[in-house]
Amino acid sequence: MANIDSWEAFEDAFCQDLLPALGGKQKTEEFFLRLSHMLVEYMAKQQDRQTKVLDFHHPHHLKEMMSHCLGIPSEGVTLEQVLSDCKETMKYGVRTGHPRFFNQLSSGLDLISVAGEWLTATVNTNMFTYEIAPTFTLMEEIVINHMISKIGWSGGDGVLTPGGTISNLYAVLLARFKFDPKVKSDGVNLHQFIIFTSKQSHYSIEQAGAVSGIGMKNVISVECDARGKMIVECLEKHIIQAKALGKVPVMVNATASTTVLGAFDPFNDIADVCEKHGIWLHVDSAWGGGYLLSNDYRYKLAGVYRADSVTWNPHKLMGQTLQCSALLTKHLGLLKECNSIGATYLFQKDKQYDLDYDTGDKTIQCGRHNDIFKLWLTWRAKTIYFVGLKFNHFNFVIKYTFDMVMWGYEEQINQVHALSRYLLGRLKQAADFELVLDEPESTNVCFWYVPDSLRNMSHGVARDTILHRVAPKIKAAMMQAGTVMIGYQPLETKPNFFRYVCANPSATQSDIDFLLDEIRRLGKAEDIKGSYTSEQITK
Amino acid sequence: MANIDSWEAFEDAFCQDLLPALGGKQKTEEFFLRLSHMLVEYMAKQQDRQTKVLDFHHPHHLKEMMSHCLGIPSEGVTLEQVLSDCKETMKYGVRTGHPRFFNQLSSGLDLISVAGEWLTATVNTNMFTYEIAPTFTLMEEIVINHMISKIGWSGGDGVLTPGGTISNLYAVLLARFKFDPKVKSDGVNLHQFIIFTSKQSHYSIEQAGAVSGIGMKNVISVECDARGKMIVECLEKHIIQAKALGKVPVMVNATASTTVLGAFDPFNDIADVCEKHGIWLHVDSAWGGGYLLSNDYRYKLAGVYRADSVTWNPHKLMGQTLQCSALLTKHLGLLKECNSIGATYLFQKDKQYDLDYDTGDKTIQCGRHNDIFKLWLTWRAKTIYFVGLKFNHFNFVIKYTFDMVMWGYEEQINQVHALSRYLLGRLKQAADFELVLDEPESTNVCFWYVPDSLRNMSHGVARDTILHRVAPKIKAAMMQAGTVMIGYQPLETKPNFFRYVCANPSATQSDIDFLLDEIRRLGKAEDIKGSYTSEQITK
Repeated sequence: MANIDSWEAFEDAFCQDLLPALGGKQKTEEFFLRLSHMLVEYMAKQQDRQTKVLDFHHPHHLKEMMSHCLGIPSEGVTLEQVLSDCKETMKYGVRTGHPRFFNQLSSGLDLISVAGEWLTATVNTNMFTYEIAPTFTLMEEIVINHMISKIGWSGGDGVLTPGGTISNLYAVLLARFKFDPKVKSDGVNLHQFIIFTSKQSHYSIEQAGAVSGIGMKNVISVECDARGKMIVECLEKHIIQAKALGKVPVMVNATASTTVLGAFDPFNDIADVCEKHGIWLHVDSAWGGGYLLSNDYRYKLAGVYRADSVTWNPHKLMGQTLQCSALLTKHLGLLKECNSIGATYLFQKDKQYDLDYDTGDKTIQCGRHNDIFKLWLTWRAKTIYFVGLKFNHFNFVIKYTFDMVMWGYEEQINQVHALSRYLLGRLKQAADFELVLDEPESTNVCFWYVPDSLRNMSHGVARDTILHRVAPKIKAAMMQAGTVMIGYQPLETKPNFFRYVCANPSATQSDIDFLLDEIRRLGKAEDIKGSYTSEQITK
Repeated sequence: MANIDSWEAFEDAFCQDLLPALGGKQKTEEFFLRLSHMLVEYMAKQQDRQTKVLDFHHPHHLKEMMSHCLGIPSEGVTLEQVLSDCKETMKYGVRTGHPRFFNQLSSGLDLISVAGEWLTATVNTNMFTYEIAPTFTLMEEIVINHMISKIGWSGGDGVLTPGGTISNLYAVLLARFKFDPKVKSDGVNLHQFIIFTSKQSHYSIEQAGAVSGIGMKNVISVECDARGKMIVECLEKHIIQAKALGKVPVMVNATASTTVLGAFDPFNDIADVCEKHGIWLHVDSAWGGGYLLSNDYRYKLAGVYRADSVTWNPHKLMGQTLQCSALLTKHLGLLKECNSIGATYLFQKDKQYDLDYDTGDKTIQCGRHNDIFKLWLTWRAKTIYFVGLKFNHFNFVIKYTFDMVMWGYEEQINQVHALSRYLLGRLKQAADFELVLDEPESTNVCFWYVPDSLRNMSHGVARDTILHRVAPKIKAAMMQAGTVMIGYQPLETKPNFFRYVCANPSATQSDIDFLLDEIRRLGKAEDIKGSYTSEQITK
């Protein structure tokens, strides 16, 4: 290990002193080693439970605190200041890889993925042509084919996109193009398209309705059962109604693990309806797709292979750094037909290599960030392997299985799922917590904290009105305390409740215990202050 | 400096041995230091003109060569293999920061931007809420306001998007929403929208027409003059025609530096037409926006402040690593009105902080990559400053100006522009090259190499047919040689020609000399082989 104290100070150096400056290599190496050291310190500190998840300040206050380094100065800063800027930035950031960060579907920090991103930034290329991204193009082909096989298709196509919402937009574009290719040139005016999705699906389907020109009101919300799963009878009723009005049902979106309750729609039943009515079936498994890697839990996505297209975000359950989302379809060739413009300055027909490898014309982007390398690198490192006792190959066939543990993506996903069951068990035993669903399907566990003052109140509007204020009050106090982070929201008629989600294999049962203790501690303090009742009813 | 030889080997280590493993910090530090060292070696080697720009192999061949490490194995690889994977990947990649890479609008490697990306990957957050991206949200506000002031607006709004094509899509969404907000819910069927853009504008406008449901054929291509600039009289004629047919002209896209010829449309004249007819004016300055930072050249964008929206990609002329694109609009509040869905699980109304800082509802994404940090970090380091002789502050007012050089974004942009003028001068003097435009406006310099066998042929179809094959043949040979990279394409009736573009401040006049010599060397060899005439006419 290098002695950090002997590393160069950069008070007299500017970005122009780095490469390609004459003799700039030494400075460049020192600069990036100092940065790396700082970033690894951050990674390590993030794993320390004594470290806060965040150091919260209101926007105007944070602006004041960072006023010495936040603006764009009239004279460029030194390299020492650049490193200092990095340090300040990390100080006031949110540690999304902290084992007590349960706030978002993306959590944890996969270090192989981080390594992949560092390389990606350094080689800085663009995914549109094989010409300038040869290796990455091959990696995208391999990983997409691997994902396709996990879905259970015998073949297909796909593309990495900047996120699940854009992936879902692709699905709408494919669905309408498959129905009528003339839509590409003539526009959606040709038909009165209707999209169906469950009431509890992600808002990206409505967004795709708006962006694609179909219109948000032409995205029909299908009713869900008490567990948040789409009611297939309702779906079919809506389809028949739409048809009767002369409209064109163009796509059904089913969800694999909804955003809030973690529900899986009944894919086989929905596929039957789609087949019967000739409608494109898209499965948004942005969140739940990772379960396909677990032999124990892939049954949750039973029937997903019947979909025409699938969204799957490795930056969620698979722990990739954001952004990493895939749109996959079983219709080979359709992405290109649907999205190609054939720009001659980029996709020249007289190139010397096999033009099928110029993937850019399958996308709705021109420049496209390389999101594949980190995923490929991690997947290679995270297929099943043995850790624990090392063993050599002997001539006789004995293998030590003693003290050996399987590890890979499958175990990682099983582990985060098991942790959610631990939380579920704890909540079932607790008198001061109530579950929204007794048997959630995904890692999502939704629950209310019921303060003492509400404990004996009978259920009804008055209680709900107060309960609605509990989670926001606790969350505000939690942000100030910075000890743990969890989100909350209302859902239909249900007052605000907490939503636990976790994709972070660093989180342990002790972190779950801490979460509940902290909600109690903060919740009681707010209760004593009378925070839940002292305000005007705002619900 | 650490002695690399003493660093750990990872042949027995797996990703599970890194943090958060017990005692994993040491391994993590060693792993990332080895990676950093490898990446800095890459940066340095890339600047060495002895290094090839690429080591080209056809897709099937590259697959074979990398077959030992390209697939997803059944057992996870060691950390040593992870590092080896990184090395192999870089070996067969394209060095887009090489001073002889002139192939794409994005070139060069800004090391501060790279440092920013490394941090971005490590802190791995999501731009949708202030809650989990407090510092980055403030940085986005500051940088967007800075860009707005460079455009010359007194205020406005903006958002970083995954690329120029998506930014241009935002512009279409804003334009149609401004015309009629009901489009969001009811769809584009309400009106027969028409978009206007020059024939030589980027294909993203057609793409936005397709994606937005307006339809590609409702994107009218307006004629250009010989320099590639939109002819305003033609624009107005098309608008009047569309109106006469009962159609709704909803947006005019003007371009600041077209993709191939680098033309700047006449913004003031176009703005006059747009004002007269009440049409949204968008300026796609994805490529040319950087000129706004140069006092010498910002006149090229005269009138841009009259636009309603502007696309500006710092990942092009400003050298940021891909992806970094901004969509800016002078209409404060419109982005949110146009794109918000108001998901209650994310944009809770009862949060404790100022909700204006939750920028996610302004976007058409949900998760959004942090593209701001690197841009903010670089901009702070690249405003004007002095390099060369250091000076101290004395009590008496004397400043050494001797041997001092200004450096910053302005100088960087002036420098890459000056280099293109050097190339232009060289081409004007050369008998074996012909310019497509004698006076290009941007850094783009388009030209033909005319082989000996064509030198005395009279201009006409026969000559053009052969000339059309010259650039592809030379390019194919150039890829094999790997010594330099430049793109080519046809344009309207013009046969294939080379397009020089460069945003890389590392490139020098010697690299330009090399480029021309190499085209000559390869071009002559192909000529001797008879490559230009021995094939069937394919044009």
